[in-house]
Amino acid sequence: MSIAVGLVGATGYTGLEVARLLASHPTAKIVAATARADAGTSIASVHPSLAGVLDLTLQELDAESLAKRCDVVMCCLPHGASAETVHDLIKAGTRVIDFSADFRLSSRDLYESWYKVVHPWPDRIGKTAYGMPEFFAKEIADADLVANPGCYPTSAILPLAPLVQSGLIDTGDIIVDSKSGVSGAGRSAKIGTLYCETNESISAYSVGSHRHQPEIEDLVHRIAGTSVRVVFTPHLTPMDRGILSTIYVRPTSGDAKTSAEQVMRTWRERYAGCPFITPVDHLPATKHVAGTNRVQMTVRASGDRLVLVCAIDNLAKGASGAAIQNMNVMFSLDETTGLT
Amino acid sequence: MSIAVGLVGATGYTGLEVARLLASHPTAKIVAATARADAGTSIASVHPSLAGVLDLTLQELDAESLAKRCDVVMCCLPHGASAETVHDLIKAGTRVIDFSADFRLSSRDLYESWYKVVHPWPDRIGKTAYGMPEFFAKEIADADLVANPGCYPTSAILPLAPLVQSGLIDTGDIIVDSKSGVSGAGRSAKIGTLYCETNESISAYSVGSHRHQPEIEDLVHRIAGTSVRVVFTPHLTPMDRGILSTIYVRPTSGDAKTSAEQVMRTWRERYAGCPFITPVDHLPATKHVAGTNRVQMTVRASGDRLVLVCAIDNLAKGASGAAIQNMNVMFSLDETTGLT
Amino acid sequence: MSIAVGLVGATGYTGLEVARLLASHPTAKIVAATARADAGTSIASVHPSLAGVLDLTLQELDAESLAKRCDVVMCCLPHGASAETVHDLIKAGTRVIDFSADFRLSSRDLYESWYKVVHPWPDRIGKTAYGMPEFFAKEIADADLVANPGCYPTSAILPLAPLVQSGLIDTGDIIVDSKSGVSGAGRSAKIGTLYCETNESISAYSVGSHRHQPEIEDLVHRIAGTSVRVVFTPHLTPMDRGILSTIYVRPTSGDAKTSAEQVMRTWRERYAGCPFITPVDHLPATKHVAGTNRVQMTVRASGDRLVLVCAIDNLAKGASGAAIQNMNVMFSLDETTGLT
Amino acid sequence: MSIAVGLVGATGYTGLEVARLLASHPTAKIVAATARADAGTSIASVHPSLAGVLDLTLQELDAESLAKRCDVVMCCLPHGASAETVHDLIKAGTRVIDFSADFRLSSRDLYESWYKVVHPWPDRIGKTAYGMPEFFAKEIADADLVANPGCYPTSAILPLAPLVQSGLIDTGDIIVDSKSGVSGAGRSAKIGTLYCETNESISAYSVGSHRHQPEIEDLVHRIAGTSVRVVFTPHLTPMDRGILSTIYVRPTSGDAKTSAEQVMRTWRERYAGCPFITPVDHLPATKHVAGTNRVQMTVRASGDRLVLVCAIDNLAKGASGAAIQNMNVMFSLDETTGLT
Repeated sequence: MSIAVGLVGATGYTGLEVARLLASHPTAKIVAATARADAGTSIASVHPSLAGVLDLTLQELDAESLAKRCDVVMCCLPHGASAETVHDLIKAGTRVIDFSADFRLSSRDLYESWYKVVHPWPDRIGKTAYGMPEFFAKEIADADLVANPGCYPTSAILPLAPLVQSGLIDTGDIIVDSKSGVSGAGRSAKIGTLYCETNESISAYSVGSHRHQPEIEDLVHRIAGTSVRVVFTPHLTPMDRGILSTIYVRPTSGDAKTSAEQVMRTWRERYAGCPFITPVDHLPATKHVAGTNRVQMTVRASGDRLVLVCAIDNLAKGASGAAIQNMNVMFSLDETTGLT
Repeated sequence: MSIAVGLVGATGYTGLEVARLLASHPTAKIVAATARADAGTSIASVHPSLAGVLDLTLQELDAESLAKRCDVVMCCLPHGASAETVHDLIKAGTRVIDFSADFRLSSRDLYESWYKVVHPWPDRIGKTAYGMPEFFAKEIADADLVANPGCYPTSAILPLAPLVQSGLIDTGDIIVDSKSGVSGAGRSAKIGTLYCETNESISAYSVGSHRHQPEIEDLVHRIAGTSVRVVFTPHLTPMDRGILSTIYVRPTSGDAKTSAEQVMRTWRERYAGCPFITPVDHLPATKHVAGTNRVQMTVRASGDRLVLVCAIDNLAKGASGAAIQNMNVMFSLDETTGLT
Repeated sequence: MSIAVGLVGATGYTGLEVARLLASHPTAKIVAATARADAGTSIASVHPSLAGVLDLTLQELDAESLAKRCDVVMCCLPHGASAETVHDLIKAGTRVIDFSADFRLSSRDLYESWYKVVHPWPDRIGKTAYGMPEFFAKEIADADLVANPGCYPTSAILPLAPLVQSGLIDTGDIIVDSKSGVSGAGRSAKIGTLYCETNESISAYSVGSHRHQPEIEDLVHRIAGTSVRVVFTPHLTPMDRGILSTIYVRPTSGDAKTSAEQVMRTWRERYAGCPFITPVDHLPATKHVAGTNRVQMTVRASGDRLVLVCAIDNLAKGASGAAIQNMNVMFSLDETTGLT
Repeated sequence: MSIAVGLVGATGYTGLEVARLLASHPTAKIVAATARADAGTSIASVHPSLAGVLDLTLQELDAESLAKRCDVVMCCLPHGASAETVHDLIKAGTRVIDFSADFRLSSRDLYESWYKVVHPWPDRIGKTAYGMPEFFAKEIADADLVANPGCYPTSAILPLAPLVQSGLIDTGDIIVDSKSGVSGAGRSAKIGTLYCETNESISAYSVGSHRHQPEIEDLVHRIAGTSVRVVFTPHLTPMDRGILSTIYVRPTSGDAKTSAEQVMRTWRERYAGCPFITPVDHLPATKHVAGTNRVQMTVRASGDRLVLVCAIDNLAKGASGAAIQNMNVMFSLDETTGLT
């Protein structure tokens, strides 16, 4: 079997990471890549690391023709813009993995209140598989459309959801302090992400107002069946890749030390069949998972709190790696194909 | 007037920073520098950035002779080792600014339970000026010994203390999530702080067990007269310098937005006469204060919490800059001399 | 005495560095700063590191009114655009230090063939003081206009010129391989200098075609009276600041080892009265001079060649530090005022 | 077929890179790993990125037992120490890929004069396959011992050798200015490679005295049949990985522009069947090949010189990737197996 993959919005970092990862995938192959501004040029002229690796000319997006040639399309467009293209691609008969936030949330109201746009295809909100195979493998396998998770939510939902499910932590008092590499800010020409602005510096941004906060709350609720309230603070960290989320929760019973042991047991049981999730004894660093689809998580007691620490690569498990994992599930391949 | 400064433990990063900063001080001058391993070599051979700037040969430490030649000694030794040297220097008649934790805490028990050593000069514990002129200027002015504050505590005490003092925040629910540059780990040959171990990576360490937690609690108590409980998590961040502390607190009354405005007002009033403390509207980045003795802090509401964000340079206001500020106070100079 | 300084083009990195350095200058003070796009906003809102340090509102450029208020204007505009503004400022009666390349070269033809623009004020080409006080202090002292040197040329001319002057090296076979921090590329929104494009990467650019090559050749000729041919290759290096130039030359006589000793002697003699130039025995790193106006240089024999290594801070001695040094000379201050 | 791989000296960066790369190799598997200091602990406790990836306990080195269990041993010991172990492993009947310099050079005298040790197994000097399949594939295929190339030499020999072979460049005037990431300095606790010493800094080292200079000269001679003289300067660059070599040569005839075209043609012909070598039109950055076994090279005219620019990943094609490529050749696999 061979899977023909289309790549929409190929000039960003997630598009490049899809290309990098698929270069070693045994059965999937990028057959077409689109980019508005750079149509007509080779993908390697935009991403010189693909020279000698992927020989493709970037095209204008034409949903009909793309759908004809592709078994699945990875759509790396920004929110708002993405939903329309996704609609056209699905209607034209291909399957889509959407990297934007357009189909992640459970309700149109929640989406529109946070994203400040009118959703162009509201019918599919709340009826789209969330691309986290650790919890939604069945929906993903059958889906024509998969909403690929946000990077920060991945680093928070994976450690939190099983603990909420098992009633181990107080759902009203959760603080997620996340640190992301600069690639999370995308590949567009902005002063704020110039080397000399972000190097040798760490800063918080969008405090109290980042759109990944409702995504974390919504998905933990969807998975665990319980409402949660999250205070979420993202930070821009001077590194290319990686997210470290330091999560402060309160145990519902017993002392923090005993509860920490229960947390580790709960994770180990819940994620026993999940090849990418690794509960670890050490304190994970983002470097320990850089370039991989893996997730390392651990827990420590600190006073009367539990501190959960979770490390992912924002471009891999936080975006393009998860997309390939989802594709593997959609096409009945082993989840890890091309990702080890 | 000219101030003769001695530098003990000159080969580390705080020693280098003292030398760098004093190079532009109009009245203070390093007249002697000691270092165990490198005695007999020039300080510029250890720190090549001092070539053509400071022409001194490193010496073995001899408290008597050093005390004779110096108006004040900056002691950059590790805790435990420092207290004995400080004792000898004081007894020999000079004044000392101690960079270690040996004289910062209020009680011998607290010190010995966290530092796991028997204190060699317990009489001075609880009777030593804490080197934060914003709160202890009078004690510092008259002191023979000043305990220079810890880097993380500086970034937490300065935003927290006035809020505790004024009763604005819940003293039982304070989370300090701090991110430090690698220089905070010192200049000794360890695998853990090699470039390739820490670059492109962020990680938490000493979760629930870092010695700066009791220092924060103890000093906020000393300043505000109220006990506080702090959950503290330090992180190693891939940059040379800087600490960003993201602090989660609960307002004692009213909604978070109103409380955030009160926080800004409280800081502006409290720090009106403090030249280095700058409450700002923007979210501070460590780069905004790099290389300076300044502190930028701001506040945001996030759900029902307040998020305080404070940026300092760990080597400047977090160590050597504070020491020079203390020295200025001790010698009746303007606090900012040589630090602007 | 107090020097009123105007800053034109204040939003770039050289403008910020002028502000940073002048903050500790005892007699010079920025009284006005201009910026096209950000006029009307505070300088601290563009450069948050100036919060609490410099309280100025950015203005539209008006040469007449600026000239009236300023003893000297630092003009940080790009080449071509700069010459016209410089003309208007001079005509309006103030003195100018021009950061652009517009008045550095000796001939209009050379300028126009490399910069591909018609020079708006060709009369001053070849009649403007080159802002390197180590060689042109007298011209600078009397000048109404000083052409502040290019960053790469500074790192090449200082080691090369005395050796050409004394006939020690072959003038027809000089290779300058330079490595610069990213701030050299300026503070405008371009993909090429985003963090994720330049971090963890080094690359050559403008090989065989960089405009600093004729500047090096022209100025060494002007200083030493001898034509030289230079092959120059700049590299973009993942760091904020600094230039390291590794320069390959051939000794005109004797073996390389003996010649290397002569090189050191020549530098030591030539630069004996130059407070910022430090010939060193160690191999200099850019970090050894970061944030300072200092220059470290050394030499090694390698086969039949001499390898000269010179480190500067591109924003300090390579731009804004040199400008302040020039200003000091223009106003009869000690060269090092505010720069130690 | 399955290849059982032994890893000797597993705690360094090249050992970790072998483990990382072999994790996605379809037929080769690490069955044993040795490390003196950490014997008895799991490899994942030394390299936390291997948690959940490679489950092995580090052992003391026992050549006999290792040889019995392994089809091939990757020996990552330092020079001098390596030769003895290699000898024992070969005698015990396994095949070895040696990462040290002990068997790379053509003559014992050359080795001993540069490495200042008596070679413990001189019989094999000059009779060992140099592990660069682009030139020595046949020798490697049959070899019991392969000398894995040095990182800098790889980045210099690959662009230079075909040009010397075809007589395009002057063999007496070659300057190699190389910039390496810090991982090239190894993973031992030294102050010189601490984060705060190397970050935000570039410096030259071992100017005129680096041991990779004779390796470049010796191998170009072995490949091209012509003696060459090389001036070589390595630089420590603030990045984890990557080598960029900027090489200055003179064309033997014609002008530099015409010669540059011949260089590209020569490379394209010579490397047509070499899957990892990519002559490119753009100026390569180390980031373009990071994490891969690929080599990008290009050429520019600069005055009367040619400037060759070559980018590799020092840990991949410069060490562990090349070793796996060699292993593939030794075991009759496609050269690219596990390396795409």
